Amino acid sequence: MTIRNLAIIGLGLLGGSIGLAVKARLPHITTTGYDRSAEVREQAAALGLVGTVHDTPQGAVKDADLVILCVPVGAMEEAARAIAPGLAPHAIISDVGSSKQAVAQALARALPEHTIIPAHPVAGTEQSGPNAGFATLFAGRWCIITPAQGADPVAVAALSEFWAGLGSKVELMDAAHHDLVLAVTSHIPHLIAYTIVGTASDLEDVTESEVIKYSAGGFRDFTRIAASDPVMWRDVFLTNKTAVLEMLGRFTEDLTALQRAIRSGDGDKLFDLFTRTRAIRRAVIEQGQDDERPDFGREHGE
Amino acid sequence: MTIRNLAIIGLGLLGGSIGLAVKARLPHITTTGYDRSAEVREQAAALGLVGTVHDTPQGAVKDADLVILCVPVGAMEEAARAIAPGLAPHAIISDVGSSKQAVAQALARALPEHTIIPAHPVAGTEQSGPNAGFATLFAGRWCIITPAQGADPVAVAALSEFWAGLGSKVELMDAAHHDLVLAVTSHIPHLIAYTIVGTASDLEDVTESEVIKYSAGGFRDFTRIAASDPVMWRDVFLTNKTAVLEMLGRFTEDLTALQRAIRSGDGDKLFDLFTRTRAIRRAVIEQGQDDERPDFGREHGE
Repeated sequence: MTIRNLAIIGLGLLGGSIGLAVKARLPHITTTGYDRSAEVREQAAALGLVGTVHDTPQGAVKDADLVILCVPVGAMEEAARAIAPGLAPHAIISDVGSSKQAVAQALARALPEHTIIPAHPVAGTEQSGPNAGFATLFAGRWCIITPAQGADPVAVAALSEFWAGLGSKVELMDAAHHDLVLAVTSHIPHLIAYTIVGTASDLEDVTESEVIKYSAGGFRDFTRIAASDPVMWRDVFLTNKTAVLEMLGRFTEDLTALQRAIRSGDGDKLFDLFTRTRAIRRAVIEQGQDDERPDFGREHGE
Repeated sequence: MTIRNLAIIGLGLLGGSIGLAVKARLPHITTTGYDRSAEVREQAAALGLVGTVHDTPQGAVKDADLVILCVPVGAMEEAARAIAPGLAPHAIISDVGSSKQAVAQALARALPEHTIIPAHPVAGTEQSGPNAGFATLFAGRWCIITPAQGADPVAVAALSEFWAGLGSKVELMDAAHHDLVLAVTSHIPHLIAYTIVGTASDLEDVTESEVIKYSAGGFRDFTRIAASDPVMWRDVFLTNKTAVLEMLGRFTEDLTALQRAIRSGDGDKLFDLFTRTRAIRRAVIEQGQDDERPDFGREHGE
């Protein structure tokens, strides 16, 4: 099976980047798109994120072999119901959501007759909206595909080929395992970043102005992640609750142990951990998952 | 008082960057340097980090009007004792340590007769060693000077002028307040980053290989900070214990409240916080304390 027509529902950072990446790397695929915001549809058309922007979800998906839902995970079921009347019987329905068990259930409820192959490209920036997209967002990043037991292998292969065509490395994974892995590599880091930025801005004895001025000591890194889309992230935490709470428990245990080490002046325990974590950074860079330049390649100087 | 001769003790990221910044921006100042590692001294000489690398601390400080100790805060007292025999009576002694009350006490013990003006340039990268330094590290960043009550105002002015000359914005602050502010903008962020990277690498149900592969979901940001120098950071936590434990308590309270919101499915609470934290990011960028390009300006694509 070959994807000839792709429909993108939701034209924000992810949807827009898929459209631009297809235009750049898979130009034989025709793209259509829809967003429930008229303003976003206008911007998407002006930016050329997809070939044709439609005014209705059914219109956008009419000829599609592949539909990718690029909406917050809490909006997946509604978006799936909205496209249902327009879908071709052979169309593959996929998505880009950060929690996969909940999305699979939502899509199965909305589209019980269709081929559903959920996916999650592990890529993004802190920005959102149609202006934020760019064609190289997925290049060199992993896309995790989480087909249900017994899913059509031809559809899985077609979706894998599609993502590989955008420059992604593709991995198949059980949805439950995905949710556990992403809880630790993405959801807990976001939760922690949101928390510390909130804590810092609520202090009485340190002003918000001081927090901002002296943020280059480390805090500013957390502000980037804590600037991510609030609706998307609210939905992630509400839909991947079990895995997030499990991983948060482990994190809190480890933080409590370090707190005790600081209180008791146990320098060796601190030094051992701080040495061990360096190796992980090296591996992240060696495997092409981060910029090797110091400080992420940030500009220094006026 | 004008600084004509500067001695830098410790030629790693900070010491080396000061040397290079002086060469680039204040070329009328003569620089000397010393590091207790012979290998670092050799590298520093080859890289031209300072005008003259000396083989003894006393030799390096002999003609200095200003001595800056660029060693981990736990090594300050020993470094100060080592330079004592060579110091000119009029020399100002300063440092770059991240905790200021403990350093002020250590330097006062070691050099009771000298003018001590502690300082902390809030700048750095995750890299360390003489090769990591660069001349623009301090440009646009804040340098906090923490003179003791009754410190010589002429010496404070000279040190302020020196840091401004390297491109820094200068602020005077009480050492105790500095330690509280930096606990939240630097020390707690580092502690959290070290913790989550440790937690992620110790899980049984998610492999280290998975953590690395899918790190672009947010985790990789934390690995950068968690690659910082282990000795430096061990010493920071041991010497700024009170403020760090205080701020850690606030963070943990807030994290517990969010955990409860996730457990009870309180989406409004999550959404409110996630919206509020975006404003802080905007302010950090508006005030020139971070790169405005998405994702810190990281390279995207193969």
